[in-house]
Amino acid sequence: MAGGGTFHPGLEGVVALETDISFLDLNAKEIIVRGYDLVALANAKSYTEVAYFILFGHLPSPEELAAFRQELRSEASIPTEVLRLLAYLPRTAHPMDVLRTGISSLGPFDPDLDASSEEAGRRVAIRILAKVPILVANLGRVLRGDPPVVSEAGDFTQSFLATITGTSPSPDAVCAFDRLLILYSEHELPSSTFAARVISSTLADAYGALTGAVASLKGPLHGGANEAVMAMLERVTDPDVFERWLMDALARKERIMGFGHQVYRDRIDPRALLMKETLASFQTDTARCLLALCERGEAVMAREKRLYPNLDYYAAPVLRVLGVPTPLATPIIFAARTVGLLAHVLEQHANNRLFRPRVRYVGPRSLKV
Amino acid sequence: MAGGGTFHPGLEGVVALETDISFLDLNAKEIIVRGYDLVALANAKSYTEVAYFILFGHLPSPEELAAFRQELRSEASIPTEVLRLLAYLPRTAHPMDVLRTGISSLGPFDPDLDASSEEAGRRVAIRILAKVPILVANLGRVLRGDPPVVSEAGDFTQSFLATITGTSPSPDAVCAFDRLLILYSEHELPSSTFAARVISSTLADAYGALTGAVASLKGPLHGGANEAVMAMLERVTDPDVFERWLMDALARKERIMGFGHQVYRDRIDPRALLMKETLASFQTDTARCLLALCERGEAVMAREKRLYPNLDYYAAPVLRVLGVPTPLATPIIFAARTVGLLAHVLEQHANNRLFRPRVRYVGPRSLKV
Repeated sequence: MAGGGTFHPGLEGVVALETDISFLDLNAKEIIVRGYDLVALANAKSYTEVAYFILFGHLPSPEELAAFRQELRSEASIPTEVLRLLAYLPRTAHPMDVLRTGISSLGPFDPDLDASSEEAGRRVAIRILAKVPILVANLGRVLRGDPPVVSEAGDFTQSFLATITGTSPSPDAVCAFDRLLILYSEHELPSSTFAARVISSTLADAYGALTGAVASLKGPLHGGANEAVMAMLERVTDPDVFERWLMDALARKERIMGFGHQVYRDRIDPRALLMKETLASFQTDTARCLLALCERGEAVMAREKRLYPNLDYYAAPVLRVLGVPTPLATPIIFAARTVGLLAHVLEQHANNRLFRPRVRYVGPRSLKV
Repeated sequence: MAGGGTFHPGLEGVVALETDISFLDLNAKEIIVRGYDLVALANAKSYTEVAYFILFGHLPSPEELAAFRQELRSEASIPTEVLRLLAYLPRTAHPMDVLRTGISSLGPFDPDLDASSEEAGRRVAIRILAKVPILVANLGRVLRGDPPVVSEAGDFTQSFLATITGTSPSPDAVCAFDRLLILYSEHELPSSTFAARVISSTLADAYGALTGAVASLKGPLHGGANEAVMAMLERVTDPDVFERWLMDALARKERIMGFGHQVYRDRIDPRALLMKETLASFQTDTARCLLALCERGEAVMAREKRLYPNLDYYAAPVLRVLGVPTPLATPIIFAARTVGLLAHVLEQHANNRLFRPRVRYVGPRSLKV
């Protein structure tokens, strides 16, 4: 047989690597991140703690956390050259194209780019983790050629949200955004994480691996579900109108984004549930209106298709309430996932095996020139 | 079991996709490209013909070839903004980092970027195929902020080589470079091609897929073998000194680059043989000296390790004879492979299945926050 094995379309069911980072446990119906339930982490910890935990494998002591915060703060700047460079992209550029180019161009400015020690890998990871949110939050500004804004206020999450919205967010808003970042921080081996591992398996650097992950997440079959839900919720405000719109879309056999998940097939994704509770905790008219709308959609999809909300469905209205512009939804998810991607790159480099699958050749043979 | 399948380290032996582009036939000991033997194509056809063939699946008629040449010529320019942008990277940047950023930044300038028709995909492919060699040949110039040079002389290959060297190449040199480009044009599913297919399986665009492939090829376990052989041949000119150097390196159990190939285990890679014959056809002192040196290395490795030259081993001295600077070796191989990568992206988009393998989780479980 060509390549000597069974053909596995999409590599479905194929175990491609060993990891101690995370696991979608289909039996226990749980997303495990380094031994903990991801939703429990989101309920109990801050994003900075979880980021430290995902990167380094243990929950930080207060001293370790303080040092990590300080490291992130001291790396929270983008070289002027990178900002000038990105300003040459067309103003109509897709935010993910700007982000992809930005991460790629940060590489040559990293003094540890060619170092191969574990310590250098750790420094590179912290730099990328600190810089990606600044790029993401400033995507619009850099395209206009305006200097980026870095909010000096508070923690990583507060500063990230303040930079996106240009205002000082309420403690509730910061808490909601923190949870959202944790819930998106790691998710086993989706296409973008797999792309990052395939790239880093040649011992290519983390900037290259993350550049490839942005490229992957840009694809409509991967990222963009969140953005699609945000766009859907922009169309209507009345639950009855939303129900009719959904019924029409289902009648046309359109796919409704934000429903269904491989782990949680018969119930709401617990990450979505936490986002729904977060949405319900906002005492504003916008939040109440969005909650009523989303609950109606949830009921319609359960009744008509026995499909239940996933994280994207209830993260979208939370992003709306936080004042996040729709085009930033996918880049923000990439920023949240950056820490998971970096952990996978460090794990790949530490215990490397080049990915080199085979093909089933279905073309002609033995043609003569 | 975690993920429900057997663990396949590096996906070795796993058939990940169906293709009619190419196949490393381990039984027939042949590299098949759309039905033809790759070495036979290199002996009989021009790179432009082979590029058309790899992209579109049939050998071009004279009219089709003329139209293809014309299309490549008309797309052979880089937007001024991209050149200005790249000039902001540090002058010490790795050529592959510049190329990665350059390809990423070309995306938003393509008017067909968001179009999903087959015809648009074809136009995007031709644009990338025309522009990558200009970027590659001008990597040094763009870092200095100098405008790129595009040689208007002759065919794709002649123009590419003239742009690299800044001189008008002899017909023999053009023929040698043409063969080299064909021999590197396609090679089934190495890590970079696999990365491009994983990325494009989210229906991400070709610029993103090729950006990821550059990132992968930069890794020392993938690209760079050619460059390493070039660097090795720069150290010595005397075959006796080279033999002693090789024996010392083997005694230290160092890996000698340029030997061994998964298809051709017990003989010289026929692509290497064609490059060796090409090297022997140059009637210059440099070529004769390099040939004597390489033949000695070939004899030493056969005697000591029963290892035989692969393409990288004899492509390196040919690149030296052609006047190609060593740092451009890997980018040139990427430029040669661009057409193969584009064919894989088009095939992935035409018959898509998202790649989503699983992991074996080896971390802790059931920890409580």
